[in-house]
Amino acid sequence: MASVTKSKKSASVKTATSAGYAGTPQRIVLRSIELFNRHGIQNVAIDRIASDLKISPGNLTYHFKRKDDLIRATLDILKERLRVALQRPVAVSSAQDGAEYLIQVFRTFWDFRFFFNSLAYLLTDDRQLRKEYAQFNQWALDIMVADVEFLVELGHFRAPVEPNNFRLLSENIWGQLLHWLRLQQIESPSASTPPNAAIYDAALHLWSLCHLWMKPAFATELLRAFQALLIPERLAKTVAIRTPRKDR
Amino acid sequence: MASVTKSKKSASVKTATSAGYAGTPQRIVLRSIELFNRHGIQNVAIDRIASDLKISPGNLTYHFKRKDDLIRATLDILKERLRVALQRPVAVSSAQDGAEYLIQVFRTFWDFRFFFNSLAYLLTDDRQLRKEYAQFNQWALDIMVADVEFLVELGHFRAPVEPNNFRLLSENIWGQLLHWLRLQQIESPSASTPPNAAIYDAALHLWSLCHLWMKPAFATELLRAFQALLIPERLAKTVAIRTPRKDR
Repeated sequence: MASVTKSKKSASVKTATSAGYAGTPQRIVLRSIELFNRHGIQNVAIDRIASDLKISPGNLTYHFKRKDDLIRATLDILKERLRVALQRPVAVSSAQDGAEYLIQVFRTFWDFRFFFNSLAYLLTDDRQLRKEYAQFNQWALDIMVADVEFLVELGHFRAPVEPNNFRLLSENIWGQLLHWLRLQQIESPSASTPPNAAIYDAALHLWSLCHLWMKPAFATELLRAFQALLIPERLAKTVAIRTPRKDR
Repeated sequence: MASVTKSKKSASVKTATSAGYAGTPQRIVLRSIELFNRHGIQNVAIDRIASDLKISPGNLTYHFKRKDDLIRATLDILKERLRVALQRPVAVSSAQDGAEYLIQVFRTFWDFRFFFNSLAYLLTDDRQLRKEYAQFNQWALDIMVADVEFLVELGHFRAPVEPNNFRLLSENIWGQLLHWLRLQQIESPSASTPPNAAIYDAALHLWSLCHLWMKPAFATELLRAFQALLIPERLAKTVAIRTPRKDR
């Protein structure tokens, strides 16, 4: 549970350091991510980042000549964070593991929502970035397919019935995840952490997408794990309602 | 089949007329939709629309004082087109009807992709538009839920197993549809009509999403109907492969 609720900032700083940024460049990149998330990449000029950090525009452009260089630097960090979040040392084998893993994935995507919410803006005219995104997306989809195939081996998921397949399922999950990020942007543009209710919304839609692929017991366990981690008060309420009242 | 391939332009003109636009205002609005679709709302200034239409900026601002007024006018047309596309006089009862209906929906969404692809940009700071979009979205989701409930009555779909429900399914379909529009923008920003292969991509992902909700025979019929309407050459190939070769 600790990993689920760990502070966004410390994780970002850690990644910024390991991605090769320290000192002023690190501060610039991390603050840019926050401003991009809040206002959208298109709406944040270099001067605004400098004034927000109380440094001169010259100091900023000394480290990052153009806004594009700064965007690139934020994407270095995003790439590393998402790789860490998606790739696990041990495969998910229980509903509890799955729920914890997915919540961590949702939070990480949320921390870098500026990128996904500006996907068309960033990729349409940048062939190189489009290629990198396509590669990253393929890599992520491969992991998702492998995860679900492993869950079939364990007897938690049904095998796909052709011509349906786990690739299509994974692409639909990806689309749903990005749609959720967009709704988050529209509904709470200035949130600095996602409320558990928002994470539960992503979890519930993903659960619905996978529901009929899962064996009934695993589907129930996964939903209960999400509820226990994200809305324990609701779970308590449900349990209370279902428990016969002795005082009646 | 005629309705599936009918010209985009004539339909837009028809709607523009019925939405109360004629003459120069109609020309301005229709050309704006094309330019917004191609370059994104954010990247098309009022002056560019005027110069594209070979009219003076003053002529344009005589009809639409600010860019916001012009955007509003495009949304009037979008709203009417989408209402017509989503609402049918007769409920979908066969796989063939369903495929034709959905293809028409995909094409209509595609014709107004600028709106969905700029959703965060348009809605984040505009409370009124956010409210209108939420109402429109609710209305569309209600139609989707009613459609699927009717397909349950007809025995083509399974009834939902709680806590999964057709609301979640419809929201996931909506998210998938909007994700597809974004990919279309990234991959072919300047396309003026969607290739059938692109429409089939949307159809296949929607089919995958609904697959396990459908009774097997209906699932097969729906996929075959999509293939016959969108990629008849592929269907012919599949049939050819499956037909034993007498010449061997």
